[in-house]
Amino acid sequence: MKRLTLVLLSGMWFSTYAQTPQDEKGIKEIFNEALSKCKSYDMLYELCTKIGPRLSGSPGAAAAVEWSRHLMLTCGFDSVWLQPVMVPHWVRGEKEITRVINSKKMGTFDLSVCAIGNSVGTGPNGVSAKVIEVKNFDELKQLGEKAVQGNIVFFNRPMDPTQIHTFAAYGGAVNQRGSGASEAAKLGAVAVIVRSMGVNLEDYPHTGSLRYASGVKQIPAVAVSTKHAELLSKLLKDEKDLQVYIEMHCEMLDDAPSYNVIGQINGSEYKNEIITVGGHLDSWDLAQGAHDDGAGCVQSIEVLRLFKTLGIQPKRTLRAVMFMNEENGMRGGMKYAELAKTNHENIIAAIESDEGGFTPRGYTMMASDAVRAKIKSWKPLLEPYGLTEFDGRGGGADIGPLGAQGTVLIGYSPDSQRYFDYHHTPEDTIDKVSPRELEMGAAAMTALVFMIDRYGLK
Amino acid sequence: MKRLTLVLLSGMWFSTYAQTPQDEKGIKEIFNEALSKCKSYDMLYELCTKIGPRLSGSPGAAAAVEWSRHLMLTCGFDSVWLQPVMVPHWVRGEKEITRVINSKKMGTFDLSVCAIGNSVGTGPNGVSAKVIEVKNFDELKQLGEKAVQGNIVFFNRPMDPTQIHTFAAYGGAVNQRGSGASEAAKLGAVAVIVRSMGVNLEDYPHTGSLRYASGVKQIPAVAVSTKHAELLSKLLKDEKDLQVYIEMHCEMLDDAPSYNVIGQINGSEYKNEIITVGGHLDSWDLAQGAHDDGAGCVQSIEVLRLFKTLGIQPKRTLRAVMFMNEENGMRGGMKYAELAKTNHENIIAAIESDEGGFTPRGYTMMASDAVRAKIKSWKPLLEPYGLTEFDGRGGGADIGPLGAQGTVLIGYSPDSQRYFDYHHTPEDTIDKVSPRELEMGAAAMTALVFMIDRYGLK
Repeated sequence: MKRLTLVLLSGMWFSTYAQTPQDEKGIKEIFNEALSKCKSYDMLYELCTKIGPRLSGSPGAAAAVEWSRHLMLTCGFDSVWLQPVMVPHWVRGEKEITRVINSKKMGTFDLSVCAIGNSVGTGPNGVSAKVIEVKNFDELKQLGEKAVQGNIVFFNRPMDPTQIHTFAAYGGAVNQRGSGASEAAKLGAVAVIVRSMGVNLEDYPHTGSLRYASGVKQIPAVAVSTKHAELLSKLLKDEKDLQVYIEMHCEMLDDAPSYNVIGQINGSEYKNEIITVGGHLDSWDLAQGAHDDGAGCVQSIEVLRLFKTLGIQPKRTLRAVMFMNEENGMRGGMKYAELAKTNHENIIAAIESDEGGFTPRGYTMMASDAVRAKIKSWKPLLEPYGLTEFDGRGGGADIGPLGAQGTVLIGYSPDSQRYFDYHHTPEDTIDKVSPRELEMGAAAMTALVFMIDRYGLK
Repeated sequence: MKRLTLVLLSGMWFSTYAQTPQDEKGIKEIFNEALSKCKSYDMLYELCTKIGPRLSGSPGAAAAVEWSRHLMLTCGFDSVWLQPVMVPHWVRGEKEITRVINSKKMGTFDLSVCAIGNSVGTGPNGVSAKVIEVKNFDELKQLGEKAVQGNIVFFNRPMDPTQIHTFAAYGGAVNQRGSGASEAAKLGAVAVIVRSMGVNLEDYPHTGSLRYASGVKQIPAVAVSTKHAELLSKLLKDEKDLQVYIEMHCEMLDDAPSYNVIGQINGSEYKNEIITVGGHLDSWDLAQGAHDDGAGCVQSIEVLRLFKTLGIQPKRTLRAVMFMNEENGMRGGMKYAELAKTNHENIIAAIESDEGGFTPRGYTMMASDAVRAKIKSWKPLLEPYGLTEFDGRGGGADIGPLGAQGTVLIGYSPDSQRYFDYHHTPEDTIDKVSPRELEMGAAAMTALVFMIDRYGLK
């Protein structure tokens, strides 16, 4: 009897924000349908194997735009359209070379590298110089211009493996990749080598983007595999005069036309309240972009498809957005927010999936305490599906610009342990994706949209 | 100020069962050490690549015994010993054949199968018969002896993909594999084909064990890949006279001598209170047994190794047990419990890891409400590491027999989504294991042992 009272009380507690048997049933139906059909995986398989790499401005990106437009039309959404946006057009060119040329212990040998996205090339004759290792910008500054001038700076601060959430470890290391070139150039360096953003010791490098500071000389930047970063560091301990030759043929071309791709189901009661779900359609050029972020794209389409298949007519308008150019410019996300403002759209919530197609853990949020509490009150409904984490802050890169318009930003947050095994590498391919884990993520997003659609966020 | 009061209050609430800054610090150190060194993965790599398959009674199993004994000696535990146990010795023999021989649509073709462990062979001339499909034992009984006599029964009930915890789906399907042969033999069947225990559509079969009911004729049993189960079922809809030829060369030899392998660190205060951690050392013959259960073995060794490396002197005695013969007889687990009883050992808790080396989710328990509440009171300490699930029932197959002696049984419970992609298949190899996920599991087990050691379970 005592137990019953407790159950009733806890039921009342949560009923503040509604949590009915219909909610429970609706969410169960969403997961049942997703897990027994696994359409997300079929979609992702097609995107990865038919289209493959799709860096902004590339033919692959154009093909992905057409593929996703066609797919959403086939799904029978109420409307599907393209949102034009000009994007940076960076090309890698011929395979990069980074060669140790005078090691007493190892002779001449090539390091496993790739150019960092947006980097300038070296010119056909390459660059040769002595290598100076640092762990961070403070160390670099302490060395000063005299030591750095004319040399190659090697940034070798690892991602911290003791961080449980690997994105925290990424956040603690990624400024080397993003700003290392300009920081080194300020002191006269001729190029930089950056330890890849990977948490394990691996044979392959991780690309990613850099941004040159304005007014600073643009110098070439390569990422080196974590294993070769260790090796290079070991050699440098004994061989202070180690020389490296770098040759890169990458270049930034003129901006190219591209698109965000959008599908919509119109709301029946509050048509002007829009819930956006999205991922980014562009990927790096080294692989299929299965986890980053093919997963987020097909999951977003799956959200709307599940509403249709289950015959759930949303009260509010639902939109799946394939953002273009997250990887090296964010132009798609900025364009989407700009047009939302121009058109006086009321986007009440935006949910982004850009942390891979892994097993669900929860959601991160950028929201007021009241909204956060409302969403968290739904936790008992979502916990049975592994969705237990509701306290993280953050939304997503593409939806970020909507924050200024008062949109509640939400990130779908899967388990992060394996993400940086694949992120920005040649390994980010469809065989690394578990159909169930991917589909659980789609259902996790759909379940949250289902609740927001039913009860709003006010 | 209000917030501070709340924090203090909640601190007091949990202090019932102790939860001090030292606990938090200790657990953090355990995870830090595990994640920055990743020794479990090195151990598992060696077990998988140097030893490989290790079915009970095989040379691989003998090598694994010696390997783990030597490894634990190298770790410097206080004592390492072997516990002799006789085990069943089943051999697969030449590759099995299961051939559809008269399909109008497909002609003659081979199904992707493997013998189910413990099955008898067919003899050199094989068995040919008509195939009758059923979903469960009720359907089989309704068909009755007249329909079944002289035929091959095809059990084709899939694992339910809508179960979030895949072990629940396994539990709902596995009686076909375990008892299907005897149930069919009771009605005169000459062999059985069982749909593999996999949740996805796959090309490869899953083995596993069966148990013949006493007094019932022992007939051959094969597992067929889920894809070919679907195909066979489709064909049977149109071709009622479909004939299949089965040839299997497996046989059960005489029991063979083997061992549980045990390593121990002696407790300083309550030496007679023993905490056992374990996994099973035997694996199926089709692959390296990386997840099943190499992972559990190396994690168990890692628990004791972490105590030593971190200089934590346990108050209670800690034991890592590599159980022999979980897969097709459970002899090791029974022997361990039998000897514990004979020797009047007080094993206060046993923790088993046999659900793969995946990212942590929590623990299952077989314990009194009071003990369960005590362990659950530590949840705030463990949640930051993804350990959020404490409500599941169950311990583990090897530790099960200890239950009768009052031992608290605990199962380490990682994420289950991918387990049945590999379980009992040729795919259960080291490349399917994430070093971080594996190590997080070892740390999750160590953290719990750390708390039990500090506070006991009374």
